[in-house]
Amino acid sequence: MAFSERVDRLKSSLIREILAAAQRPEVMSFAGGLPAESMLPKVDWDQMPASMGQYGMSEGEPALREAIAAEARSLGIDCSDSQVLIVSGSQQTLDLASKLFIDRGTEVLLEAPTYLAALQVFQLFGADCLSIPQESDGPLLDALRQRLEKHHPAFAYLIPTFQNPSAVRYSEEKRDAVAALLDEYNVTLIEDEPYRELVFDDENARPIVSRMHKASWIYTGTVSKTLLPGLRVGYLIATPDLFPYLLRLKQSADLHTNRIGQWQALQWLGSEQYHAHLAELRRFYCLRRDAMQDALTKHFFDLADWQLPQGGLFFWLRLKRPLDTRTLLKPALARDVVFMPGEPFFVDPEQNPGYLRLNFSHVAPDRLDEGIRLLASVVRGAYVVEAA
Amino acid sequence: MAFSERVDRLKSSLIREILAAAQRPEVMSFAGGLPAESMLPKVDWDQMPASMGQYGMSEGEPALREAIAAEARSLGIDCSDSQVLIVSGSQQTLDLASKLFIDRGTEVLLEAPTYLAALQVFQLFGADCLSIPQESDGPLLDALRQRLEKHHPAFAYLIPTFQNPSAVRYSEEKRDAVAALLDEYNVTLIEDEPYRELVFDDENARPIVSRMHKASWIYTGTVSKTLLPGLRVGYLIATPDLFPYLLRLKQSADLHTNRIGQWQALQWLGSEQYHAHLAELRRFYCLRRDAMQDALTKHFFDLADWQLPQGGLFFWLRLKRPLDTRTLLKPALARDVVFMPGEPFFVDPEQNPGYLRLNFSHVAPDRLDEGIRLLASVVRGAYVVEAA
Repeated sequence: MAFSERVDRLKSSLIREILAAAQRPEVMSFAGGLPAESMLPKVDWDQMPASMGQYGMSEGEPALREAIAAEARSLGIDCSDSQVLIVSGSQQTLDLASKLFIDRGTEVLLEAPTYLAALQVFQLFGADCLSIPQESDGPLLDALRQRLEKHHPAFAYLIPTFQNPSAVRYSEEKRDAVAALLDEYNVTLIEDEPYRELVFDDENARPIVSRMHKASWIYTGTVSKTLLPGLRVGYLIATPDLFPYLLRLKQSADLHTNRIGQWQALQWLGSEQYHAHLAELRRFYCLRRDAMQDALTKHFFDLADWQLPQGGLFFWLRLKRPLDTRTLLKPALARDVVFMPGEPFFVDPEQNPGYLRLNFSHVAPDRLDEGIRLLASVVRGAYVVEAA
Repeated sequence: MAFSERVDRLKSSLIREILAAAQRPEVMSFAGGLPAESMLPKVDWDQMPASMGQYGMSEGEPALREAIAAEARSLGIDCSDSQVLIVSGSQQTLDLASKLFIDRGTEVLLEAPTYLAALQVFQLFGADCLSIPQESDGPLLDALRQRLEKHHPAFAYLIPTFQNPSAVRYSEEKRDAVAALLDEYNVTLIEDEPYRELVFDDENARPIVSRMHKASWIYTGTVSKTLLPGLRVGYLIATPDLFPYLLRLKQSADLHTNRIGQWQALQWLGSEQYHAHLAELRRFYCLRRDAMQDALTKHFFDLADWQLPQGGLFFWLRLKRPLDTRTLLKPALARDVVFMPGEPFFVDPEQNPGYLRLNFSHVAPDRLDEGIRLLASVVRGAYVVEAA
């Protein structure tokens, strides 16, 4: 069978394979990025017009595009509804951007670590992925400038607000500095913000694209983390030089995003009901974060270091004595607990052992302490084996 | 701005641009492939479980995959549910197959004419498109054999049942012959069947993939033509050698297909209610086909030749005196009538002037005769200008 050359670079999604393995109900999963089942809002379909069953526009539903543009403007993003494209979940933004920018060998700039599925799709299309080390308040600026001086990346892909997997939120200073650097070198920014609304304090985090004045950009978001992922409704907002290409690539990919999900999303966005739901979600997830912080402090204090996440869905642990955390998966699953190894989030996994991503939204608090205890014992067990 | 090289081949979708131009309510559109609004079934969402709001599996909903596999087996396709992938409309099958097979310069085999959006996505990925002339009962077999002897296409893409745009249904003999030839040369078949259920007689048309014994295949279908296109739910069934790659490409494209649409599709597939709906749809569309046949006989008898379609959604007219039908679009729109020019359905548009694709499902019968009369007068007008 003669496949395309890109198929040689087609990796399976480790995340989804672990999720599949963790389907057994007795397994406690810290692996995924799933919203808590109990926090999925009850939705109503009674008022949906029959016309939503017909083919729609590739751009998306006009009213939904307007609502999204209005919300983006309230974040300081200078844009109109004509720049909004509704996509089949924000994962599709990465597919469309890959098609727009990436040939074999095209350089792109990523955080280290970065979102696994982004890394995979960029590599699938043949990108040469350059990475910038992440600090607790955003990228190492010297490294960013150095990369921009030496290379000509087609774009920088950043997740500045509660980054997946590191939970980092860029500081005001770094947001400004990154915007200025990308403008200076005229490098397109893809800013991915699935977690913006899942925030536990009142710190400002205006998007980086709202601070840019020259370079092109794509800003992408989703309702998956705040409403219902099963709708598969996300969006991108792009500068006018990019938009027409992205629209045609969307047409070619799947004609348009499903209209029933778009209609449902529109019932929520900007509504009082939605704001109330978000407030409840934040309270709920904040409690779960606190519960996990307590469990980690109890069971991992001597094993790992971490930062308390101010939003998002994850803790990012760095083991004090690094080992390849992928080797922990099997013993963890044997004890009915599963987590996400850190290595696959790096362009160079072998050079970055010893990280674990733990989701705090999914496991109920009454089981959480036991799960973290089990996980800690798996890590300790690995050290014993190592020492033997 | 440095885009990927594929962007140079990114064409806008003429179909969708015409649809956009034809949004004015006074425009009578014979251009699209839209189901009649009045035949969109009333659907019920009351029983949908809340869990459909959560993330789902990339493969699709297990029960829906089973229902689709069962239906495929009833058509003679030897397959299990593990070979079924739910996609975001069958357009996505073309995107995934392009990623799987096409590098720049990869040869693929298509009917002439063929589905415009398939041609576009294959060309976007860099395919070298070889075409096989279509006869009234399927492809010219000598031409097919010749292409297979001289070339090594990655796949053949065929629409054997009420082909878009030609409305051709392959004969039994040609189905067998095509299957045997693809087996002989071991060339993968992509069989696209959106129109199978929209049939007006009781002739057998067992899928070509059910007649193959050696080569790999992808069979793809959708609920867009029979249920609700707005759900964006289609499927592919693939031989086991191809399936794992297509699944990973699906993950990378958009994680999974929206679950609410999948749930709705499952309520219908295989049900008595669905069979009753299909019977009604066939009667309804058959009446519309007959109405258009009458109008064409009246207004186009001296202008064009055509075959009476036994299913699907289209008439395919060949002008007795060929001209570039794209030049007719503007004068037609000026008279509030729109159709689909034939040239873009060919790999070599300039060598194939003089075809029009007319949809018969959308325009109400009481306006139809007037629309066809207007269209005929546009054609006559062009001949007058030509002669002047």
